[in-house]
Amino acid sequence: MISPLLLPPRPVSRTKQIHYIYDRLWVVKLPASTEWVLHCATTLAQLDPGASASTVQLAEYYDLPSAYLAKQLKALVRAGLLAATTGPRGGFRLARPASEITLLQIVEAVDGTSSPYECREIRQQGRGALPPEECRRTCILAAKMAEAHDAWRGSLAGVTLAGILATLPPSAPARTRLRLTGTA
Amino acid sequence: MISPLLLPPRPVSRTKQIHYIYDRLWVVKLPASTEWVLHCATTLAQLDPGASASTVQLAEYYDLPSAYLAKQLKALVRAGLLAATTGPRGGFRLARPASEITLLQIVEAVDGTSSPYECREIRQQGRGALPPEECRRTCILAAKMAEAHDAWRGSLAGVTLAGILATLPPSAPARTRLRLTGTA
Repeated sequence: MISPLLLPPRPVSRTKQIHYIYDRLWVVKLPASTEWVLHCATTLAQLDPGASASTVQLAEYYDLPSAYLAKQLKALVRAGLLAATTGPRGGFRLARPASEITLLQIVEAVDGTSSPYECREIRQQGRGALPPEECRRTCILAAKMAEAHDAWRGSLAGVTLAGILATLPPSAPARTRLRLTGTA
Repeated sequence: MISPLLLPPRPVSRTKQIHYIYDRLWVVKLPASTEWVLHCATTLAQLDPGASASTVQLAEYYDLPSAYLAKQLKALVRAGLLAATTGPRGGFRLARPASEITLLQIVEAVDGTSSPYECREIRQQGRGALPPEECRRTCILAAKMAEAHDAWRGSLAGVTLAGILATLPPSAPARTRLRLTGTA
């Protein structure tokens, strides 16, 4: 299924759609859903212990498409960050304490863990191709790009949901609960 | 113009092309040309002072499409990293010493400087919308994602082309010159 979020603003021809998406491809961007899951996890971290919120409640809270949001929340469940509860009052809650969930875990649960830089080994092709015996070690350029990705990961691994909550105004959690589930 | 590099491996219908690209969109990746420019800049850094190499020479050296490579090299010229020389022996050379060109400058010349995370201010929409006066400061989640991007940038800003060259075998530059321009 193609996410409606990625379509051009107005209905256009298939060919124009392709150009639209190609243009976006050159700008390396995380999908909009990265913002969704970061906010939804932060919101769920403000619920009382044991309480949960449904996909519909979260979708209305942020005015997001619920079917697509559900897909993202399930990815967080698969990653062990959220727990899904069933039944008429079912929904999602944190699967572990907010102090044990990092932004990196949330982002990688939906966007994957691989580096945005892909080494296609062009050092081994063309007139300048290096022989295989000189390519046993990772290309130095790929290694430096991997170090940068590690720096990005390390930064996000150092931020927990508990740390985010500590920056919110003291009145925020009660308001969040009231607007999200109708119970403060 | 759509880069042939982004097309599916075999000719397929327009609709299938769209699905193919959408699938790729969810995996956040830098374009293949990021690898090209990193390698081409490293290669040009191995030329003798004042020497240059043409797009065709670089394209043959790495077996890359020369028209598209030319577009990327021009972006490096616009960024002040390469200098373009004209005439029958014209081409590209570094615009400044290899010790003053960083991997970050090269990557951002072709991929832009913005963070892959886009804050769409969902905190201000839906039932949970925060009032504008509570949103004067950057969203804490966007701020943490920006810090991670800064960590990535800082890592790449710490690596110069001179530093990369220092890791190559002593025999590498002469071989590079011979294969690239036919003069060792």
